[in-house]
Amino acid sequence: MNKLIAQLRSICGVPHVYTHEDAGADLSAWELDWRKRSRGRSLAVVRPGSTAEVAAVVKACAATPGVSIVPQGGNTGLVVGSVPDDSGTQVVLSMTRMNAVRAIDPANLTITVEAGCVLQNLQAAAEQAGFLFPLSLGAEGSCTIGGNLGTNAGGTQVLRYGNTRELCLGLEVVTAQGEVLNGLTGLRKDNTGYDLRNLMIGSEGTLGIITAATMKLYPLPAAQLTAWAAVPSMQAAVDLLGLAHQTLGPGLTGFEVMNQFALSLVDKHYPQLRVPLWQDTPWCVLLENSDSENEQHARTQFEALLERALEQGCVSDAVVAENLSQAHGLWHIRESITLAQAEEGLNIKHDISIPVSRIPAFVAETDALLQREIPGVRLVDFGHLGDGNLHYNVQAPEGGDNKAFLRDWEDKVNTLVFDQVHKFEGSISAEHGVGELKAHKLPTYKDPTALAMMRAIKQALDPHQLLNPRKVLA
Amino acid sequence: MNKLIAQLRSICGVPHVYTHEDAGADLSAWELDWRKRSRGRSLAVVRPGSTAEVAAVVKACAATPGVSIVPQGGNTGLVVGSVPDDSGTQVVLSMTRMNAVRAIDPANLTITVEAGCVLQNLQAAAEQAGFLFPLSLGAEGSCTIGGNLGTNAGGTQVLRYGNTRELCLGLEVVTAQGEVLNGLTGLRKDNTGYDLRNLMIGSEGTLGIITAATMKLYPLPAAQLTAWAAVPSMQAAVDLLGLAHQTLGPGLTGFEVMNQFALSLVDKHYPQLRVPLWQDTPWCVLLENSDSENEQHARTQFEALLERALEQGCVSDAVVAENLSQAHGLWHIRESITLAQAEEGLNIKHDISIPVSRIPAFVAETDALLQREIPGVRLVDFGHLGDGNLHYNVQAPEGGDNKAFLRDWEDKVNTLVFDQVHKFEGSISAEHGVGELKAHKLPTYKDPTALAMMRAIKQALDPHQLLNPRKVLA
Repeated sequence: MNKLIAQLRSICGVPHVYTHEDAGADLSAWELDWRKRSRGRSLAVVRPGSTAEVAAVVKACAATPGVSIVPQGGNTGLVVGSVPDDSGTQVVLSMTRMNAVRAIDPANLTITVEAGCVLQNLQAAAEQAGFLFPLSLGAEGSCTIGGNLGTNAGGTQVLRYGNTRELCLGLEVVTAQGEVLNGLTGLRKDNTGYDLRNLMIGSEGTLGIITAATMKLYPLPAAQLTAWAAVPSMQAAVDLLGLAHQTLGPGLTGFEVMNQFALSLVDKHYPQLRVPLWQDTPWCVLLENSDSENEQHARTQFEALLERALEQGCVSDAVVAENLSQAHGLWHIRESITLAQAEEGLNIKHDISIPVSRIPAFVAETDALLQREIPGVRLVDFGHLGDGNLHYNVQAPEGGDNKAFLRDWEDKVNTLVFDQVHKFEGSISAEHGVGELKAHKLPTYKDPTALAMMRAIKQALDPHQLLNPRKVLA
Repeated sequence: MNKLIAQLRSICGVPHVYTHEDAGADLSAWELDWRKRSRGRSLAVVRPGSTAEVAAVVKACAATPGVSIVPQGGNTGLVVGSVPDDSGTQVVLSMTRMNAVRAIDPANLTITVEAGCVLQNLQAAAEQAGFLFPLSLGAEGSCTIGGNLGTNAGGTQVLRYGNTRELCLGLEVVTAQGEVLNGLTGLRKDNTGYDLRNLMIGSEGTLGIITAATMKLYPLPAAQLTAWAAVPSMQAAVDLLGLAHQTLGPGLTGFEVMNQFALSLVDKHYPQLRVPLWQDTPWCVLLENSDSENEQHARTQFEALLERALEQGCVSDAVVAENLSQAHGLWHIRESITLAQAEEGLNIKHDISIPVSRIPAFVAETDALLQREIPGVRLVDFGHLGDGNLHYNVQAPEGGDNKAFLRDWEDKVNTLVFDQVHKFEGSISAEHGVGELKAHKLPTYKDPTALAMMRAIKQALDPHQLLNPRKVLA
């Protein structure tokens, strides 16, 4: 192993290789996962500065028996996918030094960036050039585009622009053999063979290491308007979504649903946020309209939509933000649900998706099952309804012991919820990925033929299990 | 082999298995490729009626040494990808009997269809339910959605809605082992493992047989308007595209460019079509604006765009269609270029893509190179500029012998054009695929690491080369 460390230092430079033997070493930033569920112990943390260095690191590790590699971006993942295990034999390959914006091509509407570029910096570079890079999510200040690609991150604008997958045109990848796949194309059409780009995206560093990407840019919208609607049922929310698609067309860029209990937690723990309309309705919806013309046009469209919705009874009351600060306020309420939940106490989180049409039945049936199992259980139900993606979270009964609740119920609740998701033809991981956290669930919930093909592909591209072993495929 | 034929008849029913031994057999419809470049001889043509029958056919063929399978949809492909070779050992698996629309889910904006459904029927089923299925291309009256998926077909609406790939949410696939992968999900977010869907799409039946698909639906636009603009140069066309993105946003659904020679051929052979504005300009552009409000709104937006473009000098003159019939007339001119070329005589066709920003330089440089090599050569240059996709076709000098021209120049011209495409970081097959026609070109123009990964994946999923051997990977 000492020989490998020496090699890594010679490849990346001594200041860019850290080990536990270094004086005062604290590798927590790379070894402890974001949600503090798992702490590993690495052989070394390596921070290469170029694609050639990544390739050389891979070759050196491949030549050292017993060593494997864990690629890492901002280490903000939610499924324990980017931290090492506790064996002390894994090299964390941190991509954060490779953070350059390599090129912006305005006429081609593309930007080429290195994997370690922080999402917020990518958004800013696009905006400075007069364009929108629409991927947006909570961790954007510290997550990297390489991590977004590795996990096919979702976020709040998927409804209009798709997941990270749909925003990517080309990739540069270092393979498990240490070869460089130069696929940094800015082409919107290229039918010369198998889709290796999409195979790499969402594979969580188990099939190759993404070192750079060419991403799509969009025109900046001329105006963005936000509305908040009280709806009488989940079915009404689904009906409102249909109306919004019809009326706003591609202008509809956000459609978030929140149940009354979720909003009551925000009201309880952050009363200064002044949650509107929540007290007399089981659900509220946050809508965003991005307009290519101007604010007045966006407002007229929104008013037409809400009028139709009130007439048809799928909305009982609504407000449209008067200005940007009000709009931010409404989004801030939506984004505070997770924090308000934490204030209320530990809870059991899910990131699931269901076909939109089946969500009302799923929620009604699963709520009832959980209430029967755990009298008084409280459901924090919210998410990106426009994408069929719910964060269906389960909180202990009021006044209960949260720790005991988690200990006694977490596995049973997960099984109950995942079984329901399976029954309704949904996914047990909509936008967070599999990592180590859910890898052992795939044999139960994934199509067995699909799982067999995944194993065959992993074996073909990484026969010695060099890249992120035991993640995705346990 | 007789045993296999008997098995196939027992699986699919006697009326659905054809062989050359049948009385009066004419299997041309399945053995002769669309452009009549290649005629194969099959062992049998099999037309299964269900996914279970497809799986059984695959298992029967897999158990018979020396036999392989060629999946086929409407047999309208342009790269010899869906016809058998002349060995007499290949079974053509025609999917056209599996043509049902299995389900439409309006609230989820999805339609689930069998692979053999003709594209036009899929479009019609969507429209009948009040939605748009936006894939649209010349062969839509006879091509099937399975073939569209297998080749990742493009067409005229890619600019806004993407290729077939971007329109698909889930697939049902029969593997080379005769197993059924049930991935018919209608989910917009699902991060539970490798992206097998996109791996199958565009693999031209070499990795699995697509039997059904869940596709996205969109709201029908309230109005569609078409404009025709004369532009002074290819650079001006690119500038106009940028302006159109800014002004129309997602309303921009079509942006086609045509050079003067292409339009002169339409004018010469179809004078009744009355090509507008072509005589005094090197290029014309066809634009389409799809509006979610109404025609008046679309017209106001178009006028604003063209006014800006005239001011900035990237448009010299323009007309907006007054009604649907005029709009169809303009599209008809664009679609008549291929026929007008054929009237003029045989020519050398290309389906290439280049980053949009580099197209002006590519065209100028490649035109000049060809003129130097072949004095008087005539270039029929047109295509989907919005996607960076050109049909860059090369016609013999006026009055020359077309057959001799093809014989003497086809290989040299292909090499010259493909070398230029490679230099400008483009693709030698933008929307038609690889098939047998371009398989031998990949080793020259494809990244070698990508090609090695493709071979490893083929070997992993179809180790006995049962599915469409020698297509894509020669």
